[in-house]
Amino acid sequence: MGVVRTIDWQDFHIVAIDQTRLPDEVVLMAIFTVEDLVDAIKRLAIRGAPALGAAGALGAAMAVRDEPRYRDRDLAALRAARPTAVNLAWGIDQAMSRFDDGADAVLAAALAVLEADGVRNRALGERGARWLAEHLDGPITVQTHCNAGALACVEWGTALGVVRSLHALGRLRHVYVDETRPLLQGARLTTWELAGMGVDHTLVVDSAGASVLARGLANAVVVGADRITANGDVVNKIGTYPLALAAARAGVPFVVAAPESTIDATLESGADVEIEVRDGREVLGGLPETATLNLAFDVTPADLVTAIVTEDRIIRPASGQRPA
Amino acid sequence: MGVVRTIDWQDFHIVAIDQTRLPDEVVLMAIFTVEDLVDAIKRLAIRGAPALGAAGALGAAMAVRDEPRYRDRDLAALRAARPTAVNLAWGIDQAMSRFDDGADAVLAAALAVLEADGVRNRALGERGARWLAEHLDGPITVQTHCNAGALACVEWGTALGVVRSLHALGRLRHVYVDETRPLLQGARLTTWELAGMGVDHTLVVDSAGASVLARGLANAVVVGADRITANGDVVNKIGTYPLALAAARAGVPFVVAAPESTIDATLESGADVEIEVRDGREVLGGLPETATLNLAFDVTPADLVTAIVTEDRIIRPASGQRPA
Repeated sequence: MGVVRTIDWQDFHIVAIDQTRLPDEVVLMAIFTVEDLVDAIKRLAIRGAPALGAAGALGAAMAVRDEPRYRDRDLAALRAARPTAVNLAWGIDQAMSRFDDGADAVLAAALAVLEADGVRNRALGERGARWLAEHLDGPITVQTHCNAGALACVEWGTALGVVRSLHALGRLRHVYVDETRPLLQGARLTTWELAGMGVDHTLVVDSAGASVLARGLANAVVVGADRITANGDVVNKIGTYPLALAAARAGVPFVVAAPESTIDATLESGADVEIEVRDGREVLGGLPETATLNLAFDVTPADLVTAIVTEDRIIRPASGQRPA
Repeated sequence: MGVVRTIDWQDFHIVAIDQTRLPDEVVLMAIFTVEDLVDAIKRLAIRGAPALGAAGALGAAMAVRDEPRYRDRDLAALRAARPTAVNLAWGIDQAMSRFDDGADAVLAAALAVLEADGVRNRALGERGARWLAEHLDGPITVQTHCNAGALACVEWGTALGVVRSLHALGRLRHVYVDETRPLLQGARLTTWELAGMGVDHTLVVDSAGASVLARGLANAVVVGADRITANGDVVNKIGTYPLALAAARAGVPFVVAAPESTIDATLESGADVEIEVRDGREVLGGLPETATLNLAFDVTPADLVTAIVTEDRIIRPASGQRPA
């Protein structure tokens, strides 16, 4: 990890790891059109809020090379590929801010988004690890949910960036990983990344995360975020909210590691965020057809969020501090 | 349902539905030895606290027909087949209380356990439904976890007994069903039972249960229990505790439906209950080998339990009332 980027640009096309094929095989996809990029995002072959920011930026660089009559359609489709993570639209906007300077300038802005991702993640990982190391005594066992690792970013990771830095500081004991139904990003991706880092870890079903905390097995929760609203509510993968409830009950800090681009100052609270509802077949697997509600994200209220760590600062929503 | 018993006795052997084969097919197992019964219990072909009580009683009736040198070994193996539900040992003890009167008396006591199960469940279902109907206005949408239906009992069900009675009262709108990883008792068994009752229902991943409550989609949680301690702590399928946290935060009543035999007056609190840890392969499925912690149950602290409904009474642990 850190050498192969999750998503990158090569000779006028995107190269990205197909995350649906992990951990069985590491397959690189070559994506030559915005249409194929949108498809890869919808089926979660490319996923994770910061990686979606990079995908948005690179997709914009592709779109501006289209014939003008296709460009707006492609940009709209890309912007709408997934509704909840703010980073996708943010990445498009970053690249398109150079539109008046021509296609090469848009590409340069997109590549700058990719470069900045790794730098930002290292900075926030360091800051989060130092904060935890100062606030907790002795070895730290982290509980995490979903995948906020290198695979969710261009490289390094956000929540797993904090884990990497704790490991480098010699303060990390163990990581508990929620499997993250229905698509198992924890079981498939996070365990694979932790094994690659040489970090001891244990996989649990999502609903056991609360028991891990109640039993005192972990003394910190660290997760990523798809959107953080002005009041400090955190929208993240479904299952984050019950973990935050359990952390509060156990007196364990609940830490959100996310770049500043995840903070959406235009929305006051989590109630204003559109929560993606995905196809019920993801839940059913091979089971007989029945009605489902496949919410992809949930809202953790600000009062349960001990700290938000970004590349620039630490925000304490549970203490009344607002991100915006 | 209600006609075919989940577990029954016929001509010196046990007949039971193999719950691992549902919902694909309804297969009846014929069990002729305690060894085969223990195997069926361990692999959850027979499961659910009240059904385990019946299995314990019928297993004892089988064991007392063994040669004496095998009897104690068989009873010990049966008692240890699963550690967390108190009902298994309770069922054995009910049947064995007639040991001095001979094998036929033990069998008669075991059959009485089966008869009483349906009567008890109807009584507690009625009581729970009336309590909810009195405490809530308008149509009631229930969130449940795992399977505490007819399949978890001899017939009728505990949590789903409450649902049946609410349905009969005309007060039930809808049921949200947690899938219940890793073995999907909610997705496989509860949806199958609800479809059979003609009750509208929606399946969600376990970690979405908290969001169902936060969004006001359900106005009651009703679950079963595997063991209830003297202080009112409730040991039930893993995932019950985070649902109770979310119910408390949402101001939704958290109701536990269980027979009196589930109350273990010998243990003061949930911390005293042995929590079964099952094989990690249940969690991994086909994923690469990695360390797991497959806790089968969790502990919901008494202060989160609005009401416990039994065949005899309503207990209010969150208001300081103790079951024993």
